[in-house]
Amino acid sequence: MKELREAIMKWGTVPCDGVVKVDNFLNHRIDSGLMMRMGKELADAFRPQSPDLVLTVEASGIALALAAAVALGEIPVVFAKKGATLVQNDDVAETRIFSFTRQQEVAIRVEKAYLPEGSRVLIVDDFLADGNAVRGMMALCRQQKCEVCGIGIAVEKGFQKGGRYLREQGLNVVSLAIIDDISGGKVTIR
Amino acid sequence: MKELREAIMKWGTVPCDGVVKVDNFLNHRIDSGLMMRMGKELADAFRPQSPDLVLTVEASGIALALAAAVALGEIPVVFAKKGATLVQNDDVAETRIFSFTRQQEVAIRVEKAYLPEGSRVLIVDDFLADGNAVRGMMALCRQQKCEVCGIGIAVEKGFQKGGRYLREQGLNVVSLAIIDDISGGKVTIR
Repeated sequence: MKELREAIMKWGTVPCDGVVKVDNFLNHRIDSGLMMRMGKELADAFRPQSPDLVLTVEASGIALALAAAVALGEIPVVFAKKGATLVQNDDVAETRIFSFTRQQEVAIRVEKAYLPEGSRVLIVDDFLADGNAVRGMMALCRQQKCEVCGIGIAVEKGFQKGGRYLREQGLNVVSLAIIDDISGGKVTIR
Repeated sequence: MKELREAIMKWGTVPCDGVVKVDNFLNHRIDSGLMMRMGKELADAFRPQSPDLVLTVEASGIALALAAAVALGEIPVVFAKKGATLVQNDDVAETRIFSFTRQQEVAIRVEKAYLPEGSRVLIVDDFLADGNAVRGMMALCRQQKCEVCGIGIAVEKGFQKGGRYLREQGLNVVSLAIIDDISGGKVTIR
């Protein structure tokens, strides 16, 4: 998506090795107009798959998930909640993921009622790096016997393994921008 | 807002004393169409105040903040981040709030660059109970010499003190629904 690529080139920085910072418009401050247009772009890509709901994980995936869900005809968003520990509750589907940001394992969970068996699920997130969050959400979908009909990402770090791993599994992954390299502090976009 | 009041009456539950659960459509599963219409309603209420940006706190305020910001003409959203501890960073404005959900103090923070001095800020959140999160965001605005030109809330718990306290200070608080009572497990809306 041209507008997103341009925003990354204009605002993206590399504060330290392996990290690209786009929190000026994506995940701390949000450019609300751009966010809605990104959601529309994902909706256009996945409309043929007829998703029943959009699944994301708190917090920074929520805005893009909402934007996509609205553009898909006001379908529901479900956001998985993060916690330090697993909870004992039969009403909850849960798994563990490694959080790159926190550098530790966290639990993510959804109420089973909000991920009904047989749902066609579009997974959405702001970033795709090693793919831990997406694989966690896929595990929740498996537990609930839901079908992942697509994975929509704002910014994929093409130099990490997540996107390749998911595509090799035959999953339909659409990233609105792919960053190929950030070595030397210079952002190169595919 | 009639549609929100009806959703609360239809879906809201009282799982335990003092807690009203609306996560079917507001803060775990999101009714994306209702959320956008709620944002528009807040935008209509606060447009005369000409806010420069919408401030909220992660995670469940983000969707409503985005919806309001879009309806206000695609102004930016800034969401404060939560953490267990204060950080040492001159670029960050920070304060502590008591989290009702976690029953403990947490730090909330924003990059100072995203809350520029003199900004007119519309504070938005999904819930208003004792007002801790809103007062925390007001403290961040004070640190940054920003003006709080309004406070927009989805669901106010009218039987807790937050709304009264803020209005007594002369703040412009708009709640789309006010719950007056949940005693005996029965939800009564004003």
